[in-house]
Amino acid sequence: MSRIITNSTPKRDGYRMPAEFESQDEIFMIWPERTDNWRLGAKPAQESYAQVAETISRFESVTMLASHSQYENCRSKLNSNIRIVEMSSNDAWCRDTGPTFLVDGKGGRRAVSWGFNAWGGLYDGLYFPWDKDLLIAEKICELTRTDYYTTDGFVLEGGSIHTDGEGTVLATEMCLLSKGRNPHMTKAEIAEKLCDYLGCEKVLWLSEGIDPLETNGHVDDIACFVRPGEVCCIYTEDKNHPFYSVSQKSVEQLSSMTDARGRKLKIHKLCCTKKPVLMADASTIDSRRGSQPRKTGELCIASYANFLICNNAVIVPQYDDENDSLALEQIGKMFPEREVVGVRTREIVYGGGNIHCITQQLPSA
Amino acid sequence: MSRIITNSTPKRDGYRMPAEFESQDEIFMIWPERTDNWRLGAKPAQESYAQVAETISRFESVTMLASHSQYENCRSKLNSNIRIVEMSSNDAWCRDTGPTFLVDGKGGRRAVSWGFNAWGGLYDGLYFPWDKDLLIAEKICELTRTDYYTTDGFVLEGGSIHTDGEGTVLATEMCLLSKGRNPHMTKAEIAEKLCDYLGCEKVLWLSEGIDPLETNGHVDDIACFVRPGEVCCIYTEDKNHPFYSVSQKSVEQLSSMTDARGRKLKIHKLCCTKKPVLMADASTIDSRRGSQPRKTGELCIASYANFLICNNAVIVPQYDDENDSLALEQIGKMFPEREVVGVRTREIVYGGGNIHCITQQLPSA
Repeated sequence: MSRIITNSTPKRDGYRMPAEFESQDEIFMIWPERTDNWRLGAKPAQESYAQVAETISRFESVTMLASHSQYENCRSKLNSNIRIVEMSSNDAWCRDTGPTFLVDGKGGRRAVSWGFNAWGGLYDGLYFPWDKDLLIAEKICELTRTDYYTTDGFVLEGGSIHTDGEGTVLATEMCLLSKGRNPHMTKAEIAEKLCDYLGCEKVLWLSEGIDPLETNGHVDDIACFVRPGEVCCIYTEDKNHPFYSVSQKSVEQLSSMTDARGRKLKIHKLCCTKKPVLMADASTIDSRRGSQPRKTGELCIASYANFLICNNAVIVPQYDDENDSLALEQIGKMFPEREVVGVRTREIVYGGGNIHCITQQLPSA
Repeated sequence: MSRIITNSTPKRDGYRMPAEFESQDEIFMIWPERTDNWRLGAKPAQESYAQVAETISRFESVTMLASHSQYENCRSKLNSNIRIVEMSSNDAWCRDTGPTFLVDGKGGRRAVSWGFNAWGGLYDGLYFPWDKDLLIAEKICELTRTDYYTTDGFVLEGGSIHTDGEGTVLATEMCLLSKGRNPHMTKAEIAEKLCDYLGCEKVLWLSEGIDPLETNGHVDDIACFVRPGEVCCIYTEDKNHPFYSVSQKSVEQLSSMTDARGRKLKIHKLCCTKKPVLMADASTIDSRRGSQPRKTGELCIASYANFLICNNAVIVPQYDDENDSLALEQIGKMFPEREVVGVRTREIVYGGGNIHCITQQLPSA
């Protein structure tokens, strides 16, 4: 019972994507199961997803979307305060395959269903096919009875953008200008598309992300808005850290930026792990043509910035690293009004993402 | 986010199944697709289901449950005011596989998830396996965030019972005492189970139904409550009509019954089709071991009593039969306060049921 709106844009209709720190009604997640991405039949990942879901559910409603074949197992692994709804998917990244919800400030709520091609399609995407993922945004809109805009083929994942809710979008050139997404469009055209569909006026462009080979540099691993005019950005002074140059450059770029309202950004620096997180034994991951292989010992994209802001809380990845508590402390100072809760998510990062990547918020109308 | 309640019964907790004529919030249906039960790849049946759904949606919210593989097709075949939610099933009989919803009169709503074995299990059931059907009640409870009771293996389909909302259950011995369902239980034990889980005090037993080989005589093809103290029952004086003896006997039995409140029942007679409805060309139905075959020319269970009462309306099967308009007229007199709408449903009856069989109401809390 969702209308598809094709003859207008959110901006024209007075809709905007709220910032993540605004009030939310519910968090959606997708239960992981593909054995060619997750170790050991996805069982350790499922345990981590369950821990994330249950942590969020202390603060807010959670709906876990699970395939029919995993439905019973998923139900048995989660507390009964979490709702399970059947939904087929190719993998479990609701940030990227779910809809982006919008509000109009007058009680109206709509959404955007972006094009999705598994982070780069046949050019450098991560798996084929992505047929089930393609329907997830639409199915969540149906489920929530939300009218939604389609973007005429424009490819975008939710993890590649952040908004401040007041007209500003944060994104990376590495991702949004990648060859696997919308190579036919100029940077200016892409910025216009973002503004039209997120109800924004200005895009702040960072150059790079920290996972060029995975999501082509999603911004949600490096920076986000803490409140209007203030951003959090990963930062390390350790020249040997794999994220050193990107973190330095990002902080430098953000330092000279002003947002859509003309405010100079205040930057909150967030530490990186002391030691790089490396892929654990990958021998129990199934081999499959068409899926990017994972190798024991390769660098994982373990960033503390991939946290979720939900009602009254911030849910933060923890890696059993020396800097885990420092990250919680720093984020606590950024969000003094919220409870900051860490969840051990090494198994999720082994699969290519983290807490922000696996969640999608339904903002309050 | 549904709790499973195993240590009590609805009756003990003050819950009852409302009558179908009480206020409803929503109707659930399941999109048909199995090619070994429906003609021509289920396409004609899908068209009929769509017509039923759209007719109901004029009066009340409708959610259509569709498998992933049929999701896009289902979405394209229904108006956008009908919600589509992904759900796997073995076939499309939401009356029988869905939950029975209960209310407590204080704003509370719960449900019962009955045992289900495809209308008789390995004894005389209609298909094997029924693994997906088994989860439908639970999934609908999750979807609607409804706590539910399980029945400790007690097998029952929603089409085999009607209630008046005031303590009375209507059922047939042919079905509820069948060997394929709960053969270890006595009639008295079964009556007690019904009363415990429907919040009732008395079961009115009719002897037989009109489809011994299909559902083993579901009551929803022969009789239902119109309002407390009043029942509708099929009736024909044509001795050659295949439903003659059952209809005569049912009216006779009902005539001598009193309900849970001690009222003598008022009986509204409802005509049968003038001509028996026979199965059309069955050659386009797939053959499959484990599924009951359908044969061209065999008798179909075409009853006008298999209507759905929804908010402000009654949705009635029509068979292109001479008595179609008489049935509408008779039902109109039973429900003078509701709009009576006929829908042509021959293709649904070819699959073994009708409008009541394919719908399940969510009563208002």
